[in-house]
Amino acid sequence: MLREAVYHLAHGNYAYPVSEDTLRVTLRAAKGDLQRVQVLYHDRYGGSEPLVATMDLVAEDELFSYYQADIVLATKRFGYVFLLDDGKNVLFYTEKGFFTEVPPNTQFHYPYIALRDLWEPPRWSQGAVIYQIFPERFANGDPTNDPPNVEAWDTPPTVTSQKGGDLQGVIDRFDHLVDLGVEVIYLTPIFQAPSNHKYDTVDYYKIDPHFGTEETLRTLIQLAHDHGIKIVLDAVFNHSGFGFFAFQDVLAKGPESAYAHWFNIESFPVQTDPPNYETFANQIATMPKLMTVESDVRDYFLEVGRYWIREFGIDGWRLDVANEIDHQFWREFRQVVKAENPEALIVGELWHEASEWVRGDQFDSVMNYSLQYACLDFFARGTIRARSFAHRLAKVQMNHTQAVNLSMFNLLGSHDTERFLTTCGGDVQKFSLAVAFQLTYEGAPMIYYGDEVGMEGLIDPDCRRGMLWDPKEQNLELLAWHKTLIELRKKHHVLRRGQSKTVWADSATNIFGFVRFSQDEQILVLLNNLPRAQSIDLREIAWPVEMPQHVQDLLTKETFNLGKIMLEPYGTRILG
Amino acid sequence: MLREAVYHLAHGNYAYPVSEDTLRVTLRAAKGDLQRVQVLYHDRYGGSEPLVATMDLVAEDELFSYYQADIVLATKRFGYVFLLDDGKNVLFYTEKGFFTEVPPNTQFHYPYIALRDLWEPPRWSQGAVIYQIFPERFANGDPTNDPPNVEAWDTPPTVTSQKGGDLQGVIDRFDHLVDLGVEVIYLTPIFQAPSNHKYDTVDYYKIDPHFGTEETLRTLIQLAHDHGIKIVLDAVFNHSGFGFFAFQDVLAKGPESAYAHWFNIESFPVQTDPPNYETFANQIATMPKLMTVESDVRDYFLEVGRYWIREFGIDGWRLDVANEIDHQFWREFRQVVKAENPEALIVGELWHEASEWVRGDQFDSVMNYSLQYACLDFFARGTIRARSFAHRLAKVQMNHTQAVNLSMFNLLGSHDTERFLTTCGGDVQKFSLAVAFQLTYEGAPMIYYGDEVGMEGLIDPDCRRGMLWDPKEQNLELLAWHKTLIELRKKHHVLRRGQSKTVWADSATNIFGFVRFSQDEQILVLLNNLPRAQSIDLREIAWPVEMPQHVQDLLTKETFNLGKIMLEPYGTRILG
Repeated sequence: MLREAVYHLAHGNYAYPVSEDTLRVTLRAAKGDLQRVQVLYHDRYGGSEPLVATMDLVAEDELFSYYQADIVLATKRFGYVFLLDDGKNVLFYTEKGFFTEVPPNTQFHYPYIALRDLWEPPRWSQGAVIYQIFPERFANGDPTNDPPNVEAWDTPPTVTSQKGGDLQGVIDRFDHLVDLGVEVIYLTPIFQAPSNHKYDTVDYYKIDPHFGTEETLRTLIQLAHDHGIKIVLDAVFNHSGFGFFAFQDVLAKGPESAYAHWFNIESFPVQTDPPNYETFANQIATMPKLMTVESDVRDYFLEVGRYWIREFGIDGWRLDVANEIDHQFWREFRQVVKAENPEALIVGELWHEASEWVRGDQFDSVMNYSLQYACLDFFARGTIRARSFAHRLAKVQMNHTQAVNLSMFNLLGSHDTERFLTTCGGDVQKFSLAVAFQLTYEGAPMIYYGDEVGMEGLIDPDCRRGMLWDPKEQNLELLAWHKTLIELRKKHHVLRRGQSKTVWADSATNIFGFVRFSQDEQILVLLNNLPRAQSIDLREIAWPVEMPQHVQDLLTKETFNLGKIMLEPYGTRILG
Repeated sequence: MLREAVYHLAHGNYAYPVSEDTLRVTLRAAKGDLQRVQVLYHDRYGGSEPLVATMDLVAEDELFSYYQADIVLATKRFGYVFLLDDGKNVLFYTEKGFFTEVPPNTQFHYPYIALRDLWEPPRWSQGAVIYQIFPERFANGDPTNDPPNVEAWDTPPTVTSQKGGDLQGVIDRFDHLVDLGVEVIYLTPIFQAPSNHKYDTVDYYKIDPHFGTEETLRTLIQLAHDHGIKIVLDAVFNHSGFGFFAFQDVLAKGPESAYAHWFNIESFPVQTDPPNYETFANQIATMPKLMTVESDVRDYFLEVGRYWIREFGIDGWRLDVANEIDHQFWREFRQVVKAENPEALIVGELWHEASEWVRGDQFDSVMNYSLQYACLDFFARGTIRARSFAHRLAKVQMNHTQAVNLSMFNLLGSHDTERFLTTCGGDVQKFSLAVAFQLTYEGAPMIYYGDEVGMEGLIDPDCRRGMLWDPKEQNLELLAWHKTLIELRKKHHVLRRGQSKTVWADSATNIFGFVRFSQDEQILVLLNNLPRAQSIDLREIAWPVEMPQHVQDLLTKETFNLGKIMLEPYGTRILG
């Protein structure tokens, strides 16, 4: 037994409550090393023989197998050890290491399922279809508020281009979103700022006049809510824009400014080239970093967070450069936001392993760039095969609780990346396969505006072209594909909140298959990531043992009747 | 290379800031597997060639070696990968796995050292000598406030014994604490409660009348503060006593009580035998569990936490059954307590792996029962040898940041355990050796009242005997040993806040040695855990590579001059 590979922690993603009396425990071991994994558990104050639960193999990555069980105790206080059997030896794995018999005081403890630790992201966000809009490029609904020097909509954008897109444009084109089946709209920043992207906020309390008025925003929110669609805004608290009143005050008054401590200024007078103050990234003079270590800075931005929820009824915040602000700020932010609306969503911009931020005290969800990387490598670039793709997904999945996974913003692209279709070399078949994955897999799929009609673009600024509205320029087949998949998603609750498990990951054929399942529903998704037709014999699929028997029966009946099925080149089959 | 054993996370105890621009990173690998470990790092926005730091082997447990490096970047934003060399292969270990060359977007990120994430427990608590007093048994200073039916001080205590100990007794015997060299007094509960231990609080705002008055407490606190000694009280928020006003109100009014929701009552009328309401542990009718999920319950107990700091100037709280209350409550508790006094200490009662609670948002420290278990097995029971002892210590050490380790309440016993000397079978030599370890090792050593004079006792109630005050009954040699070690501790700052590393752990001779070191000081501690004299050649000791060269030189000069030294049976040598 490879003891060095065995891992468990009695908290975080390795032990978390899923109901008032049920704890989900995960054990990691070397891939394929164990034949039997059990968890032996009882009330942590002891007094009875332990109960025994068999742990199911739920995921595998390159090196490890992951086993899970849901264990139930009315007293909510768990003491437990694991029994590991590799066919040669049986060992007990405890908090204090490995033993052939369990010594006293060695068990893992999950001390008590407290109701307030039983958290999950807002239900509405779990599995929801999200649409990301970069307002300056989505639609120009009101030419009267255009900035000076507006460029033609269809010319290639530069870093400084202004094209006149605005909130009225979103309102005017709302039918497109409704037709597509969008459930959440995430708008990149809309507050007053000089740039086209508006991540350099000048006034956190004012809609950018080129985007519209408070009235326009209210109209948009009302329209969205009338359609059951949520609106999430983008908040930039890591840094302000150069024109932010506080920074301007410092520029004017120097060290005498009442806001001098809001920024990290090395010396006075303030200089901008190069900046002698801390900025976003390195020396971006237009984006001075905000010192959230100062309580009045925190108060100011916590109030911003509260204001737009209370006064405008927005449904959540996406937080820019979220991981460069202290954890404590986000804990306070969560308190403020959830006090205003317990159902508000908080999503952090994080490009990397994010488990520290989604433990219940800070964010509900993050931008799932780890999943995007995996999709780019598998579908777009073809640099990894089905087996590696499955491993990469497993690794992301096992990093979080299931409820967090269901709320992850599963993106294929954003305003900060090359468009996915472009990375596919313009190959719509490849892109469509990735979209099929995105829209059926566990999580909240996020569509970057225009991807659904086949827009292309290299990384910023090219990925921020004006939206294609002329049906002659749109890829209507791709659009229809999106609609079909979203409709399917809405029809089957299991695609929204069901469990997800890889059941087929064959690098030779490059066929990847996974099943979504719940207590009473199942969907099998098969993706053929090769440019040739291939057959697959469904009778060879091993259903997850944790899938309820009657659901397995349903699926088995279906697939046994089908037996061998054909997958088109880059084809998708969805069976349920 | 055993890739399954390699572990790193870009947060928690594996990556934490130690100053405004310095990140401490830890990598775990299979024991002895690697010959060279480096971390390659640069600003996470890139733009320059990475810097390279060699990682030092800082600890080993049964299965793993742990490597650490402190890496420094003025921009405070770290992107990094590890270079692992096992003599046969060189691999880069990244967030996305192992590679022979580092692909894009794979590095670990510690996004930014935010000042508010740069936390540590109060400085005064790091390495402080703590003395735990169970007031009912320490000293009876005021016989006029004795409870009825007080038993003779020296008769064996039962579960219900009352012996008349009180706060005036602590005041009267304060010289003993000052002589001993105590820096922190931790009092088990002193609020009104019927039991002798007072973990069944009736009134959180009232000193138990058998313990004294508010005036007595004020006098004690003043006396302590005059001597630079801190006072930590014990708070029981998991459950109340049966006589708590809110529970009594429920008993009187049933479901109509305004406090009915403060408890989890299955049905009315309330019954006590067996209880039909949730209690501490299982069916302890006198301790109804408090529902901190209810906001008015939280408000009540947060106010208790604030009150005794604000009104009486206590220096901190020890929190009973801390892990059965939700994490969010403790986050709020920390806010309240630290707002009142940023230097107040918060210590949780946790008997198991505690990393979830000491991340900066909840507790500063916990009762270090994991270390106690290791000491019991090594010094008292002799069931493990020096090598295993070193492994057990390493495992605890690597679970936390260094600052947390320095504040851990390192106890050999408490009111909840058999006394250490008793587990030693009364062997004072063995106990003295354990005390030498406790009082020189990393952490805040906690002495349970009377251990220092050789008191014995089986587990509760026997471990709660009346303190021995007659010098003829005290082991004065043991007391002198404690004083000597505490004086040494006070003389050498390195024993308080220096790093700690095992340098000798030989199971054959059962000699265990460790070094405490800082930038300008070092102490070597050698413990011979066998009943025979043994020699050790100090020239064979390999000093930690992370120890500054001039400190190594100092120590080497000292020890080289000594060469072979003799250790008495169960003897201690402390060299510096």
